[in-house]
Amino acid sequence: MVSFECDYIAGAHPEIIRRLTETNMESLSGYGMDEYTVRAKEKIRRACGCPDAQVEFLVGGTQTNAVVISTMLRDWEGVIASDSGHVSVHESGAIEYTGHKVLELPGTDGKLEASALRAFIERFYSDVTHDHMVFPGMVYISYPTEPGTLYSRSELEAVSEVCREFSLPLYIDGARLGYGLMSRQSDLTLEDIARLADVFYIGGTKVGALCGEAVVFTKGNMPAHFMTSVKKRGALLAKGRLLGIQFDTLFTDDLYFRISRHAIDMAEKLKEIIREKGWEFYMDSPTNQQLVLMTEEQMEVLGKKVVFDRWGVYDEKRTIVRLATSWSTREEDLEVLREV
Amino acid sequence: MVSFECDYIAGAHPEIIRRLTETNMESLSGYGMDEYTVRAKEKIRRACGCPDAQVEFLVGGTQTNAVVISTMLRDWEGVIASDSGHVSVHESGAIEYTGHKVLELPGTDGKLEASALRAFIERFYSDVTHDHMVFPGMVYISYPTEPGTLYSRSELEAVSEVCREFSLPLYIDGARLGYGLMSRQSDLTLEDIARLADVFYIGGTKVGALCGEAVVFTKGNMPAHFMTSVKKRGALLAKGRLLGIQFDTLFTDDLYFRISRHAIDMAEKLKEIIREKGWEFYMDSPTNQQLVLMTEEQMEVLGKKVVFDRWGVYDEKRTIVRLATSWSTREEDLEVLREV
Amino acid sequence: MVSFECDYIAGAHPEIIRRLTETNMESLSGYGMDEYTVRAKEKIRRACGCPDAQVEFLVGGTQTNAVVISTMLRDWEGVIASDSGHVSVHESGAIEYTGHKVLELPGTDGKLEASALRAFIERFYSDVTHDHMVFPGMVYISYPTEPGTLYSRSELEAVSEVCREFSLPLYIDGARLGYGLMSRQSDLTLEDIARLADVFYIGGTKVGALCGEAVVFTKGNMPAHFMTSVKKRGALLAKGRLLGIQFDTLFTDDLYFRISRHAIDMAEKLKEIIREKGWEFYMDSPTNQQLVLMTEEQMEVLGKKVVFDRWGVYDEKRTIVRLATSWSTREEDLEVLREV
Amino acid sequence: MVSFECDYIAGAHPEIIRRLTETNMESLSGYGMDEYTVRAKEKIRRACGCPDAQVEFLVGGTQTNAVVISTMLRDWEGVIASDSGHVSVHESGAIEYTGHKVLELPGTDGKLEASALRAFIERFYSDVTHDHMVFPGMVYISYPTEPGTLYSRSELEAVSEVCREFSLPLYIDGARLGYGLMSRQSDLTLEDIARLADVFYIGGTKVGALCGEAVVFTKGNMPAHFMTSVKKRGALLAKGRLLGIQFDTLFTDDLYFRISRHAIDMAEKLKEIIREKGWEFYMDSPTNQQLVLMTEEQMEVLGKKVVFDRWGVYDEKRTIVRLATSWSTREEDLEVLREV
Repeated sequence: MVSFECDYIAGAHPEIIRRLTETNMESLSGYGMDEYTVRAKEKIRRACGCPDAQVEFLVGGTQTNAVVISTMLRDWEGVIASDSGHVSVHESGAIEYTGHKVLELPGTDGKLEASALRAFIERFYSDVTHDHMVFPGMVYISYPTEPGTLYSRSELEAVSEVCREFSLPLYIDGARLGYGLMSRQSDLTLEDIARLADVFYIGGTKVGALCGEAVVFTKGNMPAHFMTSVKKRGALLAKGRLLGIQFDTLFTDDLYFRISRHAIDMAEKLKEIIREKGWEFYMDSPTNQQLVLMTEEQMEVLGKKVVFDRWGVYDEKRTIVRLATSWSTREEDLEVLREV
Repeated sequence: MVSFECDYIAGAHPEIIRRLTETNMESLSGYGMDEYTVRAKEKIRRACGCPDAQVEFLVGGTQTNAVVISTMLRDWEGVIASDSGHVSVHESGAIEYTGHKVLELPGTDGKLEASALRAFIERFYSDVTHDHMVFPGMVYISYPTEPGTLYSRSELEAVSEVCREFSLPLYIDGARLGYGLMSRQSDLTLEDIARLADVFYIGGTKVGALCGEAVVFTKGNMPAHFMTSVKKRGALLAKGRLLGIQFDTLFTDDLYFRISRHAIDMAEKLKEIIREKGWEFYMDSPTNQQLVLMTEEQMEVLGKKVVFDRWGVYDEKRTIVRLATSWSTREEDLEVLREV
Repeated sequence: MVSFECDYIAGAHPEIIRRLTETNMESLSGYGMDEYTVRAKEKIRRACGCPDAQVEFLVGGTQTNAVVISTMLRDWEGVIASDSGHVSVHESGAIEYTGHKVLELPGTDGKLEASALRAFIERFYSDVTHDHMVFPGMVYISYPTEPGTLYSRSELEAVSEVCREFSLPLYIDGARLGYGLMSRQSDLTLEDIARLADVFYIGGTKVGALCGEAVVFTKGNMPAHFMTSVKKRGALLAKGRLLGIQFDTLFTDDLYFRISRHAIDMAEKLKEIIREKGWEFYMDSPTNQQLVLMTEEQMEVLGKKVVFDRWGVYDEKRTIVRLATSWSTREEDLEVLREV
Repeated sequence: MVSFECDYIAGAHPEIIRRLTETNMESLSGYGMDEYTVRAKEKIRRACGCPDAQVEFLVGGTQTNAVVISTMLRDWEGVIASDSGHVSVHESGAIEYTGHKVLELPGTDGKLEASALRAFIERFYSDVTHDHMVFPGMVYISYPTEPGTLYSRSELEAVSEVCREFSLPLYIDGARLGYGLMSRQSDLTLEDIARLADVFYIGGTKVGALCGEAVVFTKGNMPAHFMTSVKKRGALLAKGRLLGIQFDTLFTDDLYFRISRHAIDMAEKLKEIIREKGWEFYMDSPTNQQLVLMTEEQMEVLGKKVVFDRWGVYDEKRTIVRLATSWSTREEDLEVLREV
């Protein structure tokens, strides 16, 4: 059996395991005060072309979204997101748990359009009853989006511009950031992300790490006493080294980008196989996740050799199946799929 | 100047003022332990045809929604509501403040359709990732709805049936319940509401009281230690008599229904005037609130003699204007409007 | 039967009832936008000698504490209070419900001592682990305190000075403010309170109103978008007039102070009776509440003619009984007590 | 330099690193659905002598406390803890963040005494105003306690008995459980803990793991939809294997207990050295953490070769210094200390 179930089926990139092993018995201070964490932050600042960025490490994606959003919003504000956004759908209400509303706008293939964003904000302020409503306080987008689409540079610039105009921080969920940036369709770089966003995170869990996300505040805007707020949310890791060493490794010799590109290369081959098989794309994604329509019979055949994810129901006969590559996908895994 | 701005422009029905005055110097226990509160509860139980109902009084509508919803939902649940519902739009995120998501469904003229409700719940349970989502835990509807429409008996029965099928409590926001039940279009009674809902509230603030809403739990389902939960939310009134005496008065000699019917009679006359004037209805409501489209010029003329509410923007030229009648509207107020 | 159960046994001062009646049919805007509310705010600013104060009306004490504290604290902060403070003991956890800790210090007869306050804050900052703790963010005291004691001017100045030194807002809970200021033992004025506190509230519920507390921000420090935050907490009253008219009345011709002084006069007579009877004081309070130790037998005799409050258990034989006067206490009520 | 700063200065026990490496490239399902997690749960159930226990893994201690306490308390309840408890002092208000009060009782050397617990609960229920207070809903204790003391079997049985009598779940924070159970002073076993507690956690972070705590519900009392509540709190780890493999290793061949005993052996030697040096114990702990009083000069000397923790201020001249051993302490580290 091979698995294309998702992009977190394997442990960590072997280089990370090697570094964790090598440093294992060193005595290091806790809570991210160790030298590896300090070094990882510096490397990320450099990779972002943003020498003043403030970088903090957290454990997982939902946790990161809840911590960042709830510490940046003010009491009377909510966060705008696409109605397919991870914060809108797949976090069990983690944002609402912090006391803030997710203001959901209809997305287009998972993306928030600048024009829709502007229209929503203008409508809010033109409504004479808006003091009785939740104020827009932040904009959340994902890159890549949940269904695997990408904002073009001009699309992202347009969203960022609306945010600037209304003084709303733009937050980019980069759970799969590497797979977005390394996509052949992407015309954005990490520096662009850092420039256009006010805060974003570089996902580790899905891109080579055992766990861990690197939050980057790019405009000197990290909330005051952030460490205490992180602790208050149960999100402070005692052995910060676990995150520091992983990100230090990922941002040494471009490992993060190299393994992301590998996943994309594998995804392109996966797409060829899908086309060969005559399977119908639900969405032809330029990133590492492919969504395909399959009947029960097709899934039964596939399921004999391949682990996959039932992403959603499409119609009475067909299911949306997700096939994901990642840094750990091997050519031979693809061969098994080809021969199903 | 006369005002049709909303249905809470006047103080309380004179009979309520009279009773407050009469009882003013009596020594009564606090926190709703007084005899008037006890008596008011009994009268409401009787009016609902529900001898076992548990009745509690709260101060305002948003408070009531937040208290009821947050004490009835379980940790992993959210409340389903129409996207035009008061809890969705006009409570500044009061539900989310309690840590729970409002699961917004597109409404039809403000109403949640039973079929859409069922489809949403079924989609939720058929989604294999639903453990990562917010579970539907309660259904919120308004009667009348925010734009002034009414569920027919069969529509409400259908919604109630879906709730029963999925064991979801049905909660009816009756901020303007009297104006709904007394509408000429309504085919529902208070007994029907009590039978079809699991919990609802009888709005006082907009129907003759200075403040106050009566929450009715109709199925022996009042949350345990409700008084303590009310206090925890800052919603326990020390002088419970203020609420008890008002509702005791409203539910004596059918006052609640008589003054509601008066508002409806006034609204029907208001509609005649609107038609005479040739103003365009945004929505032809069977209740006490009428929504009319007006240009800036029309509003300028109207505004010289009449206070009204700008309910929303319709298009570049026209605004949705709300004209509301209430228990306090007088024939002579309508005459002023007619002569604008 | 006469009642000394508490200071909220009667309705409102007759003058308030008269004004509510007189203005009842006027058409007024909601949410505190009416002229009476505007006027009441102005009168309170004047009474406080604080022309720039920001005044807002809320419904009850616990609500007021929760709204003020949670909108003024920052994410990483808690509120310091005496361990006998109302927020510490008798609000069912309303402050914690907003996500903030009450940092309880041992009080002295209900009062927070400046020296203890300073020691606590210094200990906090000298603790190298304080980033893992709740930061002191505000100081809460009550005037009068819960057991009925009063800060002297010099005590309050000392507390205020510590607050200034550490940039902590000082918040005074004035649920019974009038009864404190009019006490024969008080050497403070309302102007002093306004000068020494950063925010405080003037209690209406226990001093002549049906409901209502007036929050006064004295240093231009009202939280931004306060109305929206109030609504979010379910604390915004639709018919703001109910609060505005009451406080307009209370602050016309010194009514608030006159009725407070009456309660104190009655309390002094009450104390004479207690002494005559040979009952033992639990605490000899200079305000309107007297705490007396009584055996079951004594309470049985008393209970035949007088309603009183069992405030707490003292020892195996004796109960702490509360006897409270208020604006509504009459000489003849005292006579009944004397003759028990 | 050697470090006795705390018990989380090293990475993971080498056997854990070995197992993480070996299993690294296996394709495993996420969110704790993998076989290692399943196996780890089974081994823990066996070690607890509790075949029906429900076991779940979380990442860190504060997170675990917040998740367990907030999902087990009901709306009107708080958790009782010693005023030196981790939840009371060192979690930045994480429990209050979930909307619940920590009801702090004075502890005795960090321990909650059964008699004090009973007295508190009885006082609560005998207070006629208790509906306005926070109900005791759960009891939290730590084993070992924060200052390093241990409950004897009879002490723990007494606490457990009070909990049973009042139907309050007893929750034991076992951040350092191994170091407590393996202490030469302990007369308790893991089976005793499982029998006497309703829920507890076996700390991994401080006892050999990179991260991770195993929550054990021993009475079939795991909250419904626990996974969704965990996700809602941002505490669900995508690669659950990271926790499963670590605990599978710790509970294979008694590794957890063997490494805990090693830390205790090292602590006994540490105590000998402390005595040899003539340093004064602040508390003579039977577990892995020793608290010693030192002057600035002593700390300066020590600090040249040894990393230690300033635990608190003792008096004007002396600081409480923490010296901790752990599974990773080596004899040669102790020799360095001896020669300071």
